Amino acid sequence: MVLLLAGTLFGVIGAAEAADINEDFKPSTLNQPGQEYPQVNSQGYARFRVVAPEAKSVTVSLGGNGGTSLTKGADGAWTGTTTGPLDEGFHYYHLTVDGGTFNDPGTLSFYGSIRWESGIEIPAHDRDFYALKDVPHGRVQQVLFPSESTGTVRRAFVYTPPDYERNQSERYPVLYLQHGWGEDETAWVNQGNANLIMDNLLAAGGTKPFLIVMTYGMTNDVKIGELAKFDVNQFERVLVDELVPYIDANFRTLADQPHRAMAGLSMGGMETRWITLKKFDTFSHIGLFSGGTISLEDVDGAPGFKDKVRLVFVSYGSRELDRSSPMRVGNPRETT
Amino acid sequence: MVLLLAGTLFGVIGAAEAADINEDFKPSTLNQPGQEYPQVNSQGYARFRVVAPEAKSVTVSLGGNGGTSLTKGADGAWTGTTTGPLDEGFHYYHLTVDGGTFNDPGTLSFYGSIRWESGIEIPAHDRDFYALKDVPHGRVQQVLFPSESTGTVRRAFVYTPPDYERNQSERYPVLYLQHGWGEDETAWVNQGNANLIMDNLLAAGGTKPFLIVMTYGMTNDVKIGELAKFDVNQFERVLVDELVPYIDANFRTLADQPHRAMAGLSMGGMETRWITLKKFDTFSHIGLFSGGTISLEDVDGAPGFKDKVRLVFVSYGSRELDRSSPMRVGNPRETT
Repeated sequence: MVLLLAGTLFGVIGAAEAADINEDFKPSTLNQPGQEYPQVNSQGYARFRVVAPEAKSVTVSLGGNGGTSLTKGADGAWTGTTTGPLDEGFHYYHLTVDGGTFNDPGTLSFYGSIRWESGIEIPAHDRDFYALKDVPHGRVQQVLFPSESTGTVRRAFVYTPPDYERNQSERYPVLYLQHGWGEDETAWVNQGNANLIMDNLLAAGGTKPFLIVMTYGMTNDVKIGELAKFDVNQFERVLVDELVPYIDANFRTLADQPHRAMAGLSMGGMETRWITLKKFDTFSHIGLFSGGTISLEDVDGAPGFKDKVRLVFVSYGSRELDRSSPMRVGNPRETT
Repeated sequence: MVLLLAGTLFGVIGAAEAADINEDFKPSTLNQPGQEYPQVNSQGYARFRVVAPEAKSVTVSLGGNGGTSLTKGADGAWTGTTTGPLDEGFHYYHLTVDGGTFNDPGTLSFYGSIRWESGIEIPAHDRDFYALKDVPHGRVQQVLFPSESTGTVRRAFVYTPPDYERNQSERYPVLYLQHGWGEDETAWVNQGNANLIMDNLLAAGGTKPFLIVMTYGMTNDVKIGELAKFDVNQFERVLVDELVPYIDANFRTLADQPHRAMAGLSMGGMETRWITLKKFDTFSHIGLFSGGTISLEDVDGAPGFKDKVRLVFVSYGSRELDRSSPMRVGNPRETT
């Protein structure tokens, strides 16, 4: 009797949920060319389809606790829809196929969690600001720079605004922009569309032109649970002693502290905080995105900081204010 | 008796093969950061390891006819070694896990076969020429250019040599370089190391500096068996009427026919042939890599070609001369 009731209830809930899902699914904008799946609907539900006819189980690491379990159809393809809408914007995910971790062959891949993962885009209400539009476009330039302190040739990407090539007498401010833990120098362009955001802002007159420099923050050898043990000194040498002079020598920058900014997401924000509290002779503008804050105590502990630094920008995502789990970089309600 | 003999022979062959394989396997240089597998030994054998404890079968699309079947160990990981050495250089591959096509989570991915595939590098005897070295490095610049004929914003990558930024009064010849079928504008840098080859050639004094422009050849909507049906006109418009003028307007090029080359691999060579036989007022230097040839009959059929074109370079890989299967672009022994 109990079992029967449970079965009936489950059936009713299942039907109610299915009725609430708009059947206007379209391929995610981050799919590989020609791939129909994964798909997203107008409410933010995601639907997956993975061909693996002989598999015992296929699950997706997205959509509620424990992800989304797919069900095999008669055609050998596993399909399933998230139990609810996903948050707007970019999500990493992967598949678990018979106990192994694989990417969804339908999507492009993006470097996060110290691996190239699948990605899906839930169209945001304000997606226009990061869309590829018919406006003048800047370039993203891959440079390979020598690093004596590490004995390696290292890669950086440099966004140059649309007018950079034409205004040969113009010099530009520079933002050094860091990715989060598990990511690398590709993240701000591939996942973050930083170049398109700049193109659109510039076309709309929303910002003055500047360069953005993105390099690997050497964040990924430390375990995610042990970030407090991270020693930023090695990256600080690469960034401040090697990359900044390289960029100033090879691009038309305004090569002084008042025109140099550093910002970062999550662990990149923590790096920004650690480095700029020491190197405020190098950076005048500071941005921490979900990566802690610079408190009045921090400022008091860094004599000269107050005179030198022009701007400290601190932001958190709306979900960070709500969540009940302990926060790596402190509770924004208390520290901001 | 027959069965026993067969079993014995198989055992002997297996042991002999195993004894011949040098146990000096190292992670492929194209692995994701920190990934130990796949590995390659000094003879060119590849060894794979894929974790999928509940899978029924895992095979690799590389290594002899039908690929390499992996065997599950007690730890839930599937391992296996190719039955022989692979050809030197870059190989695409993928896994088949319980009937589904997935990438090897150990490797970076590369766009080929109209999908991002796994890649493995068998160190070549002359790998020094495409290695990342401590020499001056050029840049790879992503540009987004408007295309009226297709109504899209399109991507190109432009290699600029190390001295491009410093010699502001210098203008440079340009090579338009096309990828093969199933690939895209990322191939010549990601798989082909075109930028590193140029850096090394320039450092050794082996070439004069020039720009390389790489864009998508619009090759991938045609099926691989139906390449002869391909209509190059749409790409020709994008390349000749839109991209060439864009590059000449936005880079310091020598913007005339004597300083403009086109070359391509495989189907990109076929595109090069089709386009340059018509547009010899645009291109003076032509390169076909495993992509057919330009015969004396072709030249006779294109009045003016002989006066305008300075160089036709035709090359094939050594394996192409040996193979017995019919060739899409003719037998090089007969057509070159």
